[in-house]
Amino acid sequence: MKFGRPRGTKDFLPDEMRVRQYIIRKIKDTFELHGFEEMDTPAIELWEVLSAKGGEEVERQIYKFQDKGGRWIGLRFDLTVPLARVVASNPNLVKPFKRYCISKVWRYEEPQSGRLREFLQADIDIVGSARMEADMECISTAVDALKSLELEGFEVRINNRKILEGMMESLAIPPEVSMRVFRTLDKIEKIGEENVSKELEKIGLNTEVICEILSFIHNQGSEALDHAEGKFGSSKLIKEGVEELRRMIELSEPYDLEGLLKVDFSLVRGLDYYTGPVFEIKVKDAQIGSVAGGGRYDSLIEKFGGGPTPATGISLGIERLYEVLNQRIRKVLSPSETVIFIANTSAEVLPDAIRLRERLIKQGIVAETDLMGRKLGRQLEYANSKKIPYVLIVGPEELQTGVFKLRDMANKKEFSVKFEDVPFTILGKHTTK
Amino acid sequence: MKFGRPRGTKDFLPDEMRVRQYIIRKIKDTFELHGFEEMDTPAIELWEVLSAKGGEEVERQIYKFQDKGGRWIGLRFDLTVPLARVVASNPNLVKPFKRYCISKVWRYEEPQSGRLREFLQADIDIVGSARMEADMECISTAVDALKSLELEGFEVRINNRKILEGMMESLAIPPEVSMRVFRTLDKIEKIGEENVSKELEKIGLNTEVICEILSFIHNQGSEALDHAEGKFGSSKLIKEGVEELRRMIELSEPYDLEGLLKVDFSLVRGLDYYTGPVFEIKVKDAQIGSVAGGGRYDSLIEKFGGGPTPATGISLGIERLYEVLNQRIRKVLSPSETVIFIANTSAEVLPDAIRLRERLIKQGIVAETDLMGRKLGRQLEYANSKKIPYVLIVGPEELQTGVFKLRDMANKKEFSVKFEDVPFTILGKHTTK
Repeated sequence: MKFGRPRGTKDFLPDEMRVRQYIIRKIKDTFELHGFEEMDTPAIELWEVLSAKGGEEVERQIYKFQDKGGRWIGLRFDLTVPLARVVASNPNLVKPFKRYCISKVWRYEEPQSGRLREFLQADIDIVGSARMEADMECISTAVDALKSLELEGFEVRINNRKILEGMMESLAIPPEVSMRVFRTLDKIEKIGEENVSKELEKIGLNTEVICEILSFIHNQGSEALDHAEGKFGSSKLIKEGVEELRRMIELSEPYDLEGLLKVDFSLVRGLDYYTGPVFEIKVKDAQIGSVAGGGRYDSLIEKFGGGPTPATGISLGIERLYEVLNQRIRKVLSPSETVIFIANTSAEVLPDAIRLRERLIKQGIVAETDLMGRKLGRQLEYANSKKIPYVLIVGPEELQTGVFKLRDMANKKEFSVKFEDVPFTILGKHTTK
Repeated sequence: MKFGRPRGTKDFLPDEMRVRQYIIRKIKDTFELHGFEEMDTPAIELWEVLSAKGGEEVERQIYKFQDKGGRWIGLRFDLTVPLARVVASNPNLVKPFKRYCISKVWRYEEPQSGRLREFLQADIDIVGSARMEADMECISTAVDALKSLELEGFEVRINNRKILEGMMESLAIPPEVSMRVFRTLDKIEKIGEENVSKELEKIGLNTEVICEILSFIHNQGSEALDHAEGKFGSSKLIKEGVEELRRMIELSEPYDLEGLLKVDFSLVRGLDYYTGPVFEIKVKDAQIGSVAGGGRYDSLIEKFGGGPTPATGISLGIERLYEVLNQRIRKVLSPSETVIFIANTSAEVLPDAIRLRERLIKQGIVAETDLMGRKLGRQLEYANSKKIPYVLIVGPEELQTGVFKLRDMANKKEFSVKFEDVPFTILGKHTTK
């Protein structure tokens, strides 16, 4: 009998893990370069925390259970709610508080390609600043992370919840309904405009209002801002939203993001807690879609008992990036992390092989020896199957003379080298001299 | 209202996280240097997997719950059981399979200093080899990791389950009882010999047998091996166990572990799945205790439907290491990862400050700008409170002349520098010239 895994989860064997680690490393380095500091919170949170502000859709997706003491807890569904809880309980954190977190979250939804129930998010957030510089710094950091991964052909779609809320207000749609409208609009790419229209009808909107909404969210680019002001000029919310977007566009020059930002009123983002700018980084190639998303959530921290604390952030999806970048990264990675295998010709010299391996390791060279009591031929087969580039052969004679056979496995060549010269030879320094 | 966390969990704010990351980085680098490859498995596992071989004590500690589809799942309590599941379902993995995993596990037990309900383990395992070289390679890798952290005064205690089982056999204690005896003996340091004795009575052992056991496990050092052979010479299990320990001691010389290994028959290890050598790395200072532990589990993978597959491994406890090393590591770390803050004298020049920051970041220098619309004085206060070592002041005049004031915050000195010379100046290269 074989044992399986829960649906929507994955094992990452070393072959795949190396690519993931490459992606994570690049993202982590970029986050740190931009002055974000790492923070970690538990995977399990109290139910009252998880249910405080995720929205009903998210609540349905939470893995929820009782601990042995009878308390309701659950697995976190994002990294933002835990951040808000921490900030609320640590009022003395110096602001702006710039933190990053690359960690797992869990959502019980239908598994599909690039979407798992347990998945890795890479989040940066800036807490304490109400200014668009903070939003832009998050976007520019995320863009730099993607550039460091040599991702190409992406754009940053931006919108502002204030504009969407202003529109709802102008159409006399009450706030509790508009949140449901937003969640429906968020699905437009997934289910299509016709189905969105049907769902909006079910919510209780009439055809005229639905047409107004759908026509409004078709607006894109800088004309969209003029259009919004023209159409709903008297709305304070729309005015603020437009101003914030204009400021973001203005800042895109110093932040070296010129031409990357694109206003798109159809961008909604599904989570309930957004209050201002929302953004999404999308690869133009339709098959790939969104690789990052986020926005401003100025009232979330208050919901957790903190003082009024503006905040904004963006999240990169590692699973999606893996799918997009996997092939290219594999070409960059060396076939094996182990550089040399120290083979023995017989059990008697195994301790010597181990001793030599330890010496190489102390010099920072990833070296292995036989752990299986295998004959020389089988040891070479192992090195070959693991694509280890060099094998050093240790036998009684070699130990006496101090001269060893070094086999270059890829080129099927053999050199005679003194042990002291092994690092020099395999690290290829003789060629760069 | 403030929101809390589940008991036995922790938030790791950046200040603490930097120390943890330092520890994790060193361990990770050592694991990779020794040729271990990273693997990752889900935090959630099916209940049938978790309950297959943990032992009843561990089973009581598992966070267990039903997913929304009604399947029983749970949070993993160690990293070894998931590894065994993966190896069993991937029979084609090249052997020896050397994997590492640094990740969280969950155990519902009484929280205490250095023991949390959600905690981080750093595991290495070698799958496929029945030889003591594999056990010794795990031990030597763990020791190197501890050395890279400059941990001092530790020793590696070793024992062998075959010796303990052989003793039980000789005392006519049946296997199902001996597992309970082992779990009791494992608590000897925690609850004391007297309480162990009482518990063994409850299990049903008579006083004579209890005395025999307690006197036997007092044996330490190389004489212990002679003693075991002398006393239970006819036991095949004891003979094998003694031979394995002798081989480990023999191998300690080539593995550069001479003098570190110490035979200790009182070392049991709580988990049920061990079948051969067990080991523990202990700081001699009694307050600190064990920082790593592991052993051989040759039948675990078969339990998960794999072919007969010997395996061994060791796990380092990050929480414990943090407690021990925290103070010293803090002295090594720089007070701030951010090297320079680019201050502005007024909002008009903020875009220029941002532009200059972006240029420094592109050169790999961690730089920040104001995100709060603060006046210059408050910007300097922020840089000071974050212990950022340098501040560059950007005003209209500086932009015109291209010469900026660079403030060395720690030494309260101010230089005039051209922007191009900033990296050179702050990275201190002028002093090493």
